[in-house]
Amino acid sequence: MSIDSAIGRLSEKLGRQVSTSMAIRMEHGQNESYFRVTPPDAVVRPKSTEDVARVVRICADEGCPVIARGVGTSLEGHALAIRGGISLDMAGMDTVLGINPDDMDVIVQPGVTREQLNTELRATGLFFPIDPGANATLGGMASTRASGTTAVRYGTMKDNVLALEVVMGDGRIIRTGNRARKSSAGYDLTALFVGSEGTLGIITELTLKLHGQPESISSAVCAFDDVDSCVRTVIATIQLGVPIARIELADTAMVRALNAWDRDMDLPEKPHLFMEFHGTPGAIAEQEATVADLVSSFGGSAFEWATTAEDRSALWRARHNAYFAAKAMRPGCRVVTTDVCVPISRLAEAISETAAEIEASPIDGPIVGHVGDGNFHAALLIDPESQDELAVAKELAGKMNHRALRLGGTITGEHGIGVGKIPFMAEEHGDAWAIMADLKRAIDPGDVMNPGKIVKIN
Amino acid sequence: MSIDSAIGRLSEKLGRQVSTSMAIRMEHGQNESYFRVTPPDAVVRPKSTEDVARVVRICADEGCPVIARGVGTSLEGHALAIRGGISLDMAGMDTVLGINPDDMDVIVQPGVTREQLNTELRATGLFFPIDPGANATLGGMASTRASGTTAVRYGTMKDNVLALEVVMGDGRIIRTGNRARKSSAGYDLTALFVGSEGTLGIITELTLKLHGQPESISSAVCAFDDVDSCVRTVIATIQLGVPIARIELADTAMVRALNAWDRDMDLPEKPHLFMEFHGTPGAIAEQEATVADLVSSFGGSAFEWATTAEDRSALWRARHNAYFAAKAMRPGCRVVTTDVCVPISRLAEAISETAAEIEASPIDGPIVGHVGDGNFHAALLIDPESQDELAVAKELAGKMNHRALRLGGTITGEHGIGVGKIPFMAEEHGDAWAIMADLKRAIDPGDVMNPGKIVKIN
Repeated sequence: MSIDSAIGRLSEKLGRQVSTSMAIRMEHGQNESYFRVTPPDAVVRPKSTEDVARVVRICADEGCPVIARGVGTSLEGHALAIRGGISLDMAGMDTVLGINPDDMDVIVQPGVTREQLNTELRATGLFFPIDPGANATLGGMASTRASGTTAVRYGTMKDNVLALEVVMGDGRIIRTGNRARKSSAGYDLTALFVGSEGTLGIITELTLKLHGQPESISSAVCAFDDVDSCVRTVIATIQLGVPIARIELADTAMVRALNAWDRDMDLPEKPHLFMEFHGTPGAIAEQEATVADLVSSFGGSAFEWATTAEDRSALWRARHNAYFAAKAMRPGCRVVTTDVCVPISRLAEAISETAAEIEASPIDGPIVGHVGDGNFHAALLIDPESQDELAVAKELAGKMNHRALRLGGTITGEHGIGVGKIPFMAEEHGDAWAIMADLKRAIDPGDVMNPGKIVKIN
Repeated sequence: MSIDSAIGRLSEKLGRQVSTSMAIRMEHGQNESYFRVTPPDAVVRPKSTEDVARVVRICADEGCPVIARGVGTSLEGHALAIRGGISLDMAGMDTVLGINPDDMDVIVQPGVTREQLNTELRATGLFFPIDPGANATLGGMASTRASGTTAVRYGTMKDNVLALEVVMGDGRIIRTGNRARKSSAGYDLTALFVGSEGTLGIITELTLKLHGQPESISSAVCAFDDVDSCVRTVIATIQLGVPIARIELADTAMVRALNAWDRDMDLPEKPHLFMEFHGTPGAIAEQEATVADLVSSFGGSAFEWATTAEDRSALWRARHNAYFAAKAMRPGCRVVTTDVCVPISRLAEAISETAAEIEASPIDGPIVGHVGDGNFHAALLIDPESQDELAVAKELAGKMNHRALRLGGTITGEHGIGVGKIPFMAEEHGDAWAIMADLKRAIDPGDVMNPGKIVKIN
């Protein structure tokens, strides 16, 4: 019973789908964030659910960790093989299996990316709205309970996964849920697997809710004198029930980064809100008028509209590139990302205290926020060679997490736990963390599925 | 170790909060549906979370079943003490603990009813939208993952519970979640407890999302020649993205029942849609115009508007009384309720086959449906003394369940499993039902929490 023996048996069964070449292992040991490269012992590329079940059965038998991986957009090292074992590369299972336009749902394999899905949906009048920025796989997005810029209107993966097919730690293949829009038939296993980061089973198929493509879309940016005014505008917008599709904050440091990154951007160096409205032309006009009133009453600048599709996509490309724009401010740096989410009434306080702490520190950390949800990120920029800077960043991130919990919030709105947030789980959950460990022990007693993430059971 | 010994110890600790009087036990052994009266061995009325924890610790120690109960609106016998033990009457824990208007959330004890909550919210401009018809407790609604007429717009309890306080089977008190709008911090325990029917723990506090009271509300009814045209109208409405607040079907038999029940009702004896629109006056006008076009293109009658608050409340009172109106068609009868939910593209087929089977049977079964979700109910009316009629009703219900599963749906959209749906769990879930049992065993190894519901572990 060993990892080596597992790899031997996997190679026998799956032949060239198994690779132990150093180049491929190194590639699967990379991560987008600051964690050190952690190559798995082998990489397996399944082509089907049955392949996944075969791999998992052998791994379970040999006590060999198995860690599913999408396209590696994770920011918390979720897919790193920290105890060795198999990186299960799901990116090749990338077929859209069936679109049901009447029911507004779709069945996909986990390696389908959100952009690929929306390309395939284009002619149907439907789309999948969850947009974390990166072109992540849908399996990865479900596994981290991802969301992003559109959650304020369309919810998170939690709200948009109807059902899953999952390979369990003993190789059994189960289905959670079905194509009904709602069900009260027992424990919500779909919700249990969404956000479980591959620690309870491997997602091999997803049934997703779709939404109608909006008849019209309009986008706008406006500048404010301070973050507090931005946040007050957002609170008022949400409270009035305006079904705004995106409402995003960039602080002054982030606006500077965006201006520097994108040659078409020339925003005043002040905090900004980026907004998008979806609906019929009439509904949008009404929403715009309401929000414009609020913006002006909180001292914001007049809207600058992005009316053409090109302008809109430039605007959101800029926003989506915030991570890279921030990173580009310091060539060669690594980013320690943060991801707190607080009740919106405490958001201004959370952001301004964070910004002050970053300002007083020796490193930079521009801030962006999905402020309609109370969620924001500081991108802490560090020299990858400097242990001192890593320590500073971790201290800043720690303070953000403690503050979020003190304000009634969470250490992660959308990125998940992975490797980076484990030290804060006890503080966030108390005894409920022990219940999570009980669930993990019940479902994966051998601790074979992505061990060491979310909970620690041995 | 016994139920008697548990009752003795409980009486010592909790004095007059514990009752073994036959009258009170009988009252707590009643149910709204056709299950036989099943009195618990004792009734305990906790006043606090600590009381609940005390009760559960003693029950765990003595192997005595403990079953939480709200106000008894359950339609599947969820709260019946089928293995004896303690009925934990949560109705007295009915305090609204805190309203956070800026964050649009509220913290309540589980015995607060939805009408009580909305009364307390009236001055805030906010409301809690989930409306199962009955004035159920919020703890009960969370436990069955309830929804009702407004789910098409506002979702179900699953979508509107942010966090819970739960007493576990060993008396530990945990918190699941927090007041952040979203979180990716580990397994979604909130979603696991919502819909778990008291089998995993006792909910002692709920944090709920609130919504802004709509600026305007309008309601309408219209008649169609057949159910199929109703359903096609609904599908088109949903696909166009109209954010309709309620869209309900009553079939011809149900319209007859409503006319007979409510002296102000005089609808043509045809299938009807009942609709409600929420929003700004402009947004509502737009929605109404869109839906009116669809209604007429599917051969529906002109809208009959309920414009005043009185007319609207009469309309929805009638719809909410559908259960009692149906029951009144046959004085002294009991109702076998059904609750299937299918992908909306299969809804017309599911309803028409059901109606034909009922028509061909010796009993009546008017149909209502939350058709925007694909969910409908036939209220099968039986003579409580007739085993033959019960058998007929169960056969009809069984056919509805099998059909729902065949069409990609579920055996229960919102009522839950309780006693009545256990026989269909294996068919709906396959191996996933065994995973549910694993979870139950892990969390409540002594099978003390509402044993025999949802799963069977011994």
